[in-house]
Amino acid sequence: MEYTLILDILGVIAFSISGVLSALKKRMDVFGIFIIAFVTSVGGGTLRDVLLGVPVMWMQNLTYVYVIIITAVLAVFFRKKLFYLRKSLFLFDTFGIGLYTVAGVEKGIAEGLPAIICIALGTVSACFGGVIRDILCNEIPQIFRREIYATACILGGFSYFVFLRLNLPLSLIFICSGFVVILVRLSAVIFKLSLPSVYKRDEDIEDYW
Amino acid sequence: MEYTLILDILGVIAFSISGVLSALKKRMDVFGIFIIAFVTSVGGGTLRDVLLGVPVMWMQNLTYVYVIIITAVLAVFFRKKLFYLRKSLFLFDTFGIGLYTVAGVEKGIAEGLPAIICIALGTVSACFGGVIRDILCNEIPQIFRREIYATACILGGFSYFVFLRLNLPLSLIFICSGFVVILVRLSAVIFKLSLPSVYKRDEDIEDYW
Amino acid sequence: MEYTLILDILGVIAFSISGVLSALKKRMDVFGIFIIAFVTSVGGGTLRDVLLGVPVMWMQNLTYVYVIIITAVLAVFFRKKLFYLRKSLFLFDTFGIGLYTVAGVEKGIAEGLPAIICIALGTVSACFGGVIRDILCNEIPQIFRREIYATACILGGFSYFVFLRLNLPLSLIFICSGFVVILVRLSAVIFKLSLPSVYKRDEDIEDYW
Repeated sequence: MEYTLILDILGVIAFSISGVLSALKKRMDVFGIFIIAFVTSVGGGTLRDVLLGVPVMWMQNLTYVYVIIITAVLAVFFRKKLFYLRKSLFLFDTFGIGLYTVAGVEKGIAEGLPAIICIALGTVSACFGGVIRDILCNEIPQIFRREIYATACILGGFSYFVFLRLNLPLSLIFICSGFVVILVRLSAVIFKLSLPSVYKRDEDIEDYW
Repeated sequence: MEYTLILDILGVIAFSISGVLSALKKRMDVFGIFIIAFVTSVGGGTLRDVLLGVPVMWMQNLTYVYVIIITAVLAVFFRKKLFYLRKSLFLFDTFGIGLYTVAGVEKGIAEGLPAIICIALGTVSACFGGVIRDILCNEIPQIFRREIYATACILGGFSYFVFLRLNLPLSLIFICSGFVVILVRLSAVIFKLSLPSVYKRDEDIEDYW
Repeated sequence: MEYTLILDILGVIAFSISGVLSALKKRMDVFGIFIIAFVTSVGGGTLRDVLLGVPVMWMQNLTYVYVIIITAVLAVFFRKKLFYLRKSLFLFDTFGIGLYTVAGVEKGIAEGLPAIICIALGTVSACFGGVIRDILCNEIPQIFRREIYATACILGGFSYFVFLRLNLPLSLIFICSGFVVILVRLSAVIFKLSLPSVYKRDEDIEDYW
């Protein structure tokens, strides 16, 4: 599908730029910047494919590699201007996780796995590029502290199976469950929603030990 | 075997709770807590299965996923009480590594690998969930500084092949080598044993460079 | 080829010693030291094999495991003397990345992958052992800040395909492209070369946000 490819590339661009910014903050060199852009973009999908034991997607399709290289070069050159693009980048990122989630769910279904594992694979595809980026940058993964990001993916993956039960056509399910991810994420950011915290104020787990 | 399943589930519970506690210390959100519980429980087995190129165990058997979800929820709610369970948790954890070690060794044997690789796979199964947990929490893996833990697994794996040479029946070998892991670990903790340190007092490797 | 095996073992020795030194700096125990030596030596090749979905090399050939164990034991005992070996170690390491790069490129070609992916696989084989070592030691990977190391591998991999176009015999291509890696790395160190930095003096990416 033509428009899927466009969304996919927009997602890769957004993820690459987020990787470039993380690498610049750590004053990495050109090689480090490219590697961080690369793992942020395709790390989640790579982990999904390795867990599934299927060929890794970017080895089969060079489009990813070229898009990441071009994006990384442009992002380094125009790094001062990226600030003005932050709203577009946020939108691209949101489209990206919507698409990656649904693509991950469908890969799991294609392997005949149960629904809960497919939802996990979709979430891994969308979120673990950022987790690997943060590990390589020696930080605790952001996503483990910013929950609506992953929660949007989980809800989108769940809605995929609800729509499947309703016998909607597959292409419609693809679009609708992708939109669930996007809507949840957008609402969370616009209305500053977050799940109730499990922590009491000033609570420190060390106090109990 | 019925009792293997029970031990396996006790091990998963102990590992999940240890993951929840690490995540709470880092003030992670609900999603982060669950992911850390998950990788602590099944990360070692996942790495083993990926290295072996066989299907990943938790994708085939949803029991793991359900046990981890329920444990994580209960551990968050009753986190103040976990302190009182610490001796049981230590026992569960010890049973868990015993079982995981032997299960890992047997998976390696099933793939026709040499003994030393099978022992390594058993140790990876038992210990690397904790290693991945510590990496995600941005700490140096505890196990690299607390050696009797991994040493118990290595000795247990080694004893498996000794018992195999003695032509004991397989089910007895399974139990005996699991017990070697458990006994070594328990003795180490009870008698505060540790391997001789390689460091001299106040020695700093940087001094030589 | 006899001499390939010797180079391979020299590379494994150099990588293991570098791992032992990192682990000693972090005051790890015997188990930690061995694991860090192990992942530094074979981590890159393991990641390459997992990405390719082929059997992991050190499970098939125990030579690696034995060489690493012996090297780690000797390196711990003679750690005070290692300083005097630093030039030899640097040479071994350089031969090692030359060999690993070409071996990785050839594995990619054997799987029928495009040139750019093969070059990436060669670079991963040579460099990612060190990346995993630094992650386990809770540091930002050195290689992301020291660019001629990886750049040498990329240039060597690239030259492989140039030589292939020139229809040189395969064994000559193997040697020549390995030498490209070694020459680039040696020149960079001897003449203190580095790629132009992307950073302006005192520039901080945070300033733009």
